[in-house]
This record gives sequence, structure tokens and C-alpha cells, in this order.
Amino acid sequence: MLLGQVAGKVWATKKSPALTGQAFLTVRVGERLLVCADCVGAGEGETVLVATGGAARVAAGAELPIDAAIVGILDES
Amino acid sequence: MLLGQVAGKVWATKKSPALTGQAFLTVRVGERLLVCADCVGAGEGETVLVATGGAARVAAGAELPIDAAIVGILDES
Amino acid sequence: MLLGQVAGKVWATKKSPALTGQAFLTVRVGERLLVCADCVGAGEGETVLVATGGAARVAAGAELPIDAAIVGILDES
Amino acid sequence: MLLGQVAGKVWATKKSPALTGQAFLTVRVGERLLVCADCVGAGEGETVLVATGGAARVAAGAELPIDAAIVGILDES
Amino acid sequence: MLLGQVAGKVWATKKSPALTGQAFLTVRVGERLLVCADCVGAGEGETVLVATGGAARVAAGAELPIDAAIVGILDES
Repeated sequence: MLLGQVAGKVWATKKSPALTGQAFLTVRVGERLLVCADCVGAGEGETVLVATGGAARVAAGAELPIDAAIVGILDES
Repeated sequence: MLLGQVAGKVWATKKSPALTGQAFLTVRVGERLLVCADCVGAGEGETVLVATGGAARVAAGAELPIDAAIVGILDES
Repeated sequence: MLLGQVAGKVWATKKSPALTGQAFLTVRVGERLLVCADCVGAGEGETVLVATGGAARVAAGAELPIDAAIVGILDES
Repeated sequence: MLLGQVAGKVWATKKSPALTGQAFLTVRVGERLLVCADCVGAGEGETVLVATGGAARVAAGAELPIDAAIVGILDES
Repeated sequence: MLLGQVAGKVWATKKSPALTGQAFLTVRVGERLLVCADCVGAGEGETVLVATGGAARVAAGAELPIDAAIVGILDES
């Protein structure tokens, strides 16, 4: 999994029907910006754990057309 | 998913039979150029959400030989 | 999918039995060189569409141990 | 698989329910930091073998939302 | 698939039970070092064809926790 920081939200009115109602957050992972399905209710600025590929669909519990999902929020240390 | 900008179209008369009738767009993602199946009717210059790997086949709703698909068009802000 | 240019052929007498009879071409994708199963009869110098990961096996129509396949030849413009 | 060095632990109280009880270690692989499920009881500073993608779920023996797992500890030489 | 050169062997006494008896070789692919299951009996210094992701498990003929496998040895030219 990757560690990243939630940067903001993404709004896409026109999208694959299967994605209706799914919240998407942008997560900064090093120099890359990934758009992730949010499975844990993460908020802007939080450090999160991102699962990619098939793991994102396992996290969503459904065969959604997603390849990245937030699966954990790191405890503040 | 990745954020990118639709750069143009790709035409391939000679291709895998399973790809017949499928529209392909080039999408600029950072410095990379990806060829994506278009599942939402995106147009040149639009900022889109690209799903990769198995997620692209989920988006297409069929086991097509594709590894990238446009699954959303970002709302203009 | 990736856009690349066919650079040459690869010969491997000693290989996984499942790959017997399969043609392999080297394709230059940016600065990387990928070895791809050829599903469309591509020739040296042609610009091709490369499908990666599970999409390559979908293109081959069989569970071959391959992770990249040429699935289209770009029309000359 | 990738070779990396265990850098530390990751704590996430808020996470996907399927990840409850799973230990996660950060592993430095070149310049990247990966968070990996630990399948072999690795400790900080050890050089480990990391399996990625679907291989991580095979290692865990369950469809967990993980995309990286430590599957071996290198013998000291 | 990737082209690389076998650099050496990897020994891991402590590993996932499913990997018992499996030979692992390090393969240099550009600037990266991959650890690969050896499916063809490759030797140090040989130029090999590496299949990644699910293709490695297809090559092994079993659901092993591996994401890279040597599937061919290039003929010397």
C-alpha cells in the first residue's frame, strides 16, 4: 500500500454508472496525485493508506471500475 | 485512478477483433501518454478520470484486451 | 494502453512450454523496452498499441505467462 | 518481487474492517516507501522480499484489500 | 515482459510456506533489481525474459505469492 495525504475532492457528474454515489478524494503520493475511492471517511490533510489495483475492488466489496482506494487513516503520532 | 487531459484520438484499422467499434482516446497523464477506451463520451481537452488495469475491463463491462479506460469527466470548477 | 514502436524480434529457444510458437517483438515505449506477444502481425518500425497486465492474456485468448501484447497497429496519418 | 528494508510500523485505528488485526510494516524499496502486510514476522532493519499486487493476496491466503506483502526475510550473508 | 540480466541468487530461510523449494534469482532490469521465480533454469549473466504480475503465477502453474518469473532465456546472437 502507499502512504499519501488527502489533498481534496473530485467531482464528476458524467461518469460510469457503477460509480454513482462513490466519493472520490485526491491523494498526494510523493509527486503523484491519485484519485481514490474513499472507504473509510478520510478528510483533507489526513495521512492515509492507499490500496491499488485489484485490492481497491476488494476494499470496495464490489467489482467497481476503480484501481485505488483509501483503506486506512494513519493514527497521529 | 489517474487524472489526465484528453489529447486526441487513435485510429487502428488493424487490431484485435475484440476491439472492433471501441473508441480510443489519448490522455496525457503528467508526462505519460496513455491510450484509453472511452466509456463516457469524453472530448478533446477535457480533464478525465482514468481507471487502469482490471478496473478498465470492469468499466467496459466485458473482458476486452484493454488496460486503461476513461470512467469520468471532471466537472469544470 | 501504451503507444510504442516495434524495435525488433526476440528469440528464446529455452522458455516456458506455454510460450512455444508465440512470436515476441521488442517495443520501445518512451525510454523503456518491452517484450510483447504479437497478436496482430506487427512489423518493425510500426507504431503499435500495447496492452499490459491481464489485458495481454485477454488479447491472447489464453492464460499464457505474458504481461504485454500488441493489440493494434496505428494507421499512418 | 522487490527487495527492501523494514523501516518501521504503521498504526491505523480507522481502517477497512477486513484489515483488523493485520500487522503493517513500512518497507523502503529504493527511494519508495511501501506499506506491506507482514506474512513472516519481519523486524525493523531486516532485508525482506516483497510481493506486490495479487501476489500479496495469495500470500495472505485471503481476499484482503492489500497490494503488498512481506513473503520472505533474506538470510544474512 | 521485461528484458534483464541474471545477477545472482537470493536465499530466504524464513518465508511464506508456499515458496518452499522455489528458486529465486535477482534480475537487473535497467536500474531496478527484481527478484524472480526461475521457471526455466537460468544462470548468472544470462539475458532473460521476465513476466510480471499475474503472468508470473501463470508461469509457475500455481497460485504462488510471486509477482515476477523468468519465462525465457534469450538466444545468444
